[in-house]
Amino acid sequence: MFNRTMGALLFGVAILAVSSNGPAIAEEIKGNFVLVAELEIDPSNLEKFTAAAKEDGETAVRVEPGCLAFNVVYEKDNPGHIRFFEVYTDPDAFKAHLETAHFKKYAAVTKDMVKSRKRIDSVPMTLLVKK
Amino acid sequence: MFNRTMGALLFGVAILAVSSNGPAIAEEIKGNFVLVAELEIDPSNLEKFTAAAKEDGETAVRVEPGCLAFNVVYEKDNPGHIRFFEVYTDPDAFKAHLETAHFKKYAAVTKDMVKSRKRIDSVPMTLLVKK
Repeated sequence: MFNRTMGALLFGVAILAVSSNGPAIAEEIKGNFVLVAELEIDPSNLEKFTAAAKEDGETAVRVEPGCLAFNVVYEKDNPGHIRFFEVYTDPDAFKAHLETAHFKKYAAVTKDMVKSRKRIDSVPMTLLVKK
Repeated sequence: MFNRTMGALLFGVAILAVSSNGPAIAEEIKGNFVLVAELEIDPSNLEKFTAAAKEDGETAVRVEPGCLAFNVVYEKDNPGHIRFFEVYTDPDAFKAHLETAHFKKYAAVTKDMVKSRKRIDSVPMTLLVKK
């Protein structure tokens, strides 16, 4: 009895170890809404803008249950052209994001840096991340 | 002895459970290159296109060491307008992706569906995913 119970428990632990350290897995992000935003800023503000966007995104992904991913990039050949790609569980979760203190801080800090802004509400076809 | 060993094992399992279900963390994706692509297709092909893009992305994230994330979305108000947002360790990893069998299959299957395509090589400012 002792050996069989031990064996069953150790087998269970082994399964856990394999699944967390095994071959790479394409994990699906279960979001139903993606906010794409295209912004234009003066490239001289890139560093300050990045700091503000990063702080907003880190807080959003950590504390908002509905914010699943938060990506910001600039164009290699045109560093003033910025794209946001934010994944939410649903459109209401993005509406909730716009009411948070961290988003309002980001918006206030970057207000005078942004020359133009385009928002493109999008629907996920596939959202995959390596695990 | 039986009870102490059992207890130790069960404690170990409990620790694993807590660490995987603890508070949400904003995990950074360590990629240095993002491929943004904007495509136009006939919306009637959306389902077939999605299947092909999903198969390409799932294989890429699973088997390519340099492909860290692979996202595809369509515009809510304009379902023929598609965006790819793919994260790679570096530009060479994206070049390698273009030479894979799964990318070539995707390209062949979708070739006649794509009306226009724009590629925008991008640099990450922040790439975050909920863990």
